[in-house]
Amino acid sequence: MNIRFYNARILPMTNGVEMLEGELWTEGNKISYIGPSKKDDTVFDREIDCKGNVLLPGFKDVHTHSGMTAFRSLADDTNLQDWLNDMIFPREAKMSGEDIYWLTKLAILEYLTSGITLIGDMYLTPETILDACADMGFRCELVSGLNKFGPTLEVLERRYKELNGKDPLVGFKMGAHAEYTCDKKLLEDLSELIHRYRSPFYVHMSETKAEVEGCRERYGMSPVEFFDTLGLWDFGGSIYHGVWINDKDMEILKKRNISVISNPGSNVKLASGIAPIAKYLEKGILVGLGTDGPSSNNALDMFREMYLVTTLAKVKDYDPKAVPADEVLKMATVNGAISLGHEDCSDLSVGKLADIIMIDLDQPNMQPILNIPKNIVYSGCKSNVKMTMIDGKILYMDGRFEMYGDVSEIYRKCQEITEKFKDI
Amino acid sequence: MNIRFYNARILPMTNGVEMLEGELWTEGNKISYIGPSKKDDTVFDREIDCKGNVLLPGFKDVHTHSGMTAFRSLADDTNLQDWLNDMIFPREAKMSGEDIYWLTKLAILEYLTSGITLIGDMYLTPETILDACADMGFRCELVSGLNKFGPTLEVLERRYKELNGKDPLVGFKMGAHAEYTCDKKLLEDLSELIHRYRSPFYVHMSETKAEVEGCRERYGMSPVEFFDTLGLWDFGGSIYHGVWINDKDMEILKKRNISVISNPGSNVKLASGIAPIAKYLEKGILVGLGTDGPSSNNALDMFREMYLVTTLAKVKDYDPKAVPADEVLKMATVNGAISLGHEDCSDLSVGKLADIIMIDLDQPNMQPILNIPKNIVYSGCKSNVKMTMIDGKILYMDGRFEMYGDVSEIYRKCQEITEKFKDI
Repeated sequence: MNIRFYNARILPMTNGVEMLEGELWTEGNKISYIGPSKKDDTVFDREIDCKGNVLLPGFKDVHTHSGMTAFRSLADDTNLQDWLNDMIFPREAKMSGEDIYWLTKLAILEYLTSGITLIGDMYLTPETILDACADMGFRCELVSGLNKFGPTLEVLERRYKELNGKDPLVGFKMGAHAEYTCDKKLLEDLSELIHRYRSPFYVHMSETKAEVEGCRERYGMSPVEFFDTLGLWDFGGSIYHGVWINDKDMEILKKRNISVISNPGSNVKLASGIAPIAKYLEKGILVGLGTDGPSSNNALDMFREMYLVTTLAKVKDYDPKAVPADEVLKMATVNGAISLGHEDCSDLSVGKLADIIMIDLDQPNMQPILNIPKNIVYSGCKSNVKMTMIDGKILYMDGRFEMYGDVSEIYRKCQEITEKFKDI
Repeated sequence: MNIRFYNARILPMTNGVEMLEGELWTEGNKISYIGPSKKDDTVFDREIDCKGNVLLPGFKDVHTHSGMTAFRSLADDTNLQDWLNDMIFPREAKMSGEDIYWLTKLAILEYLTSGITLIGDMYLTPETILDACADMGFRCELVSGLNKFGPTLEVLERRYKELNGKDPLVGFKMGAHAEYTCDKKLLEDLSELIHRYRSPFYVHMSETKAEVEGCRERYGMSPVEFFDTLGLWDFGGSIYHGVWINDKDMEILKKRNISVISNPGSNVKLASGIAPIAKYLEKGILVGLGTDGPSSNNALDMFREMYLVTTLAKVKDYDPKAVPADEVLKMATVNGAISLGHEDCSDLSVGKLADIIMIDLDQPNMQPILNIPKNIVYSGCKSNVKMTMIDGKILYMDGRFEMYGDVSEIYRKCQEITEKFKDI
């Protein structure tokens, strides 16, 4: 499909939040032209009048657990440990790969409504998450959630080899669940594997104060330091959360080129804390954004995360200038892509993948039009997502899921799955 | 108009978050029936199949400054004082009543998209705000923003007498801008007026630490104490913000039956702080919610405020149990109405005003359906507002503003107004 978008405002995210007016063309799954209105003999399959609405790179939700849609609104307003032990773990133990296939499909629908075009997904059955993404044309990097309860390192290695390249939209990254769910031997073996493949590494880290204190008790240092001594940072990667971080940790993250994926919604809802985002930016550490799973957030909504990441940074330091809107948009698009090695869809430029969203300005919360980037960050919401395109295909437009037909089958399946767990 | 809503889930907010399934009928501007499906010889002008979607009382945004839509995205990521002095005050000085009429209309469109059916609006020209609300069929309590720069006490009294009762949808309340913008003599005179009319009283209070410290320097006590000594609390009312409050203040608020209207979005964006909501609830102080103005928030979105009020309370005290979803829904509906003396539209019961919204469950962020109140508070967003009815009239449905025809004229007017200020 070759598609021409005309009468567009374009926010390519290639030069801060500088915008231009004109056209954007796609050819197959790539962007083929961005610039002023022009006519040549190119034949398009579809021409879309943007009516002044804004095209920008899709949002990158680089830390989530899609399959946890099963547990939305199941265990809120409770302590984390009660939540995990009483509600989540017994249910997860009974979840099948097929369950997770359907639950991931439900999450994908929601990602599309929020303009999300790439996720980093750590959950139980990467094989069926891959199937869900492939079937729905959704871009995803699967991330291993290795821990001492399973799967084994051999499974991780097999998945790394088999799942990478199985579908052009889906990759697989090495990762572990967290320091506190892995023992030292496992982490050492994992480091050996990472070195063998020269692979970046992804992990939940420094989410709660108790977690960091536990690590200090066990190893006499912070999780960031501990993993550094194990060589786990040698090929880059990301830590998820990074709420409880000191100056020494920051130096290591900077030196090792480790990005921080902040999940502000989850961090406040679970009462974990507020991450030091302004300080990360000051130190030149790359910050991306994630929704975390729908059980701890509970929405998969990048507008919420964008608003939270800046306003929480402001209130944390009593500094209304902290983390301005242009930085937030960069986190939600460019930085997230880079954190997963996806420079190929980080911004809108010719030759990059056509992962594009359109923001509807013709709604009261986007009026008047004085500063569009700030409108998006401070007043935007899911209702403003007029279109979500991944890999050159329009998957969501004007409230409808163009490619999927009737999605109520997905709702029905997921309801059935959650009701299976009722009596646990 | 008599309208029958059938196949509905109903969350009347009359008994916590207990729900029922059945029908809701309206007759003129009131609710005439709520209960199981039934048939009698009532003739309806319209029958709406809710398809299992949820009817609940409209949200009450009880502290806002609608006319500040002119300043959306104008002055973010700056210090409050720079923002006010350099950007806002010079523009406000040039705003006409007609400007505010149009800017308020724009805000009303956004309120409707967010399921807001009542606002408490403190802004410059109550007369034209009243006109905007009356023309759009929108319910509003105007609140005086008296301060030492104007208007006079005489104007306040005249407005109180003339504007109350001028339109059945609009009332006028006595109030002042803030302690720091009024001198003592003015507040004493105001207290005299309040006593004459036995009127509740509304004011910005304890929003920032500096404000409270300033008051202590001027009068040797907190703003809450100071106003108590002046008798300003003698007939109830609300304080807006209430971020910096001590135990003694709380005792006074409780004793004087003063509610706190929390504006969490504005408080974090302006880096004012996080209000002690859990403590207010513990003390039995009524808490309502407001968006504050679109220049300091910047959206007029009660879903955002609901999510923020609970998650900020959780992270403030590191307590994930703080301020559970049922309390939040009560704040956003019942409590807000009570704070403005509007028991007549606080919940869904027979005889009350038909200020009703419908939440669309047929969207990915509302699935699966395990706990609807938690779905609304933790995953809900504007996209889920399927209908907003005020005073028995459907003003917004399925993304369209049924009563107003083409709303682009409002956008155009507001854009024109903001461009007038360009060169200030």
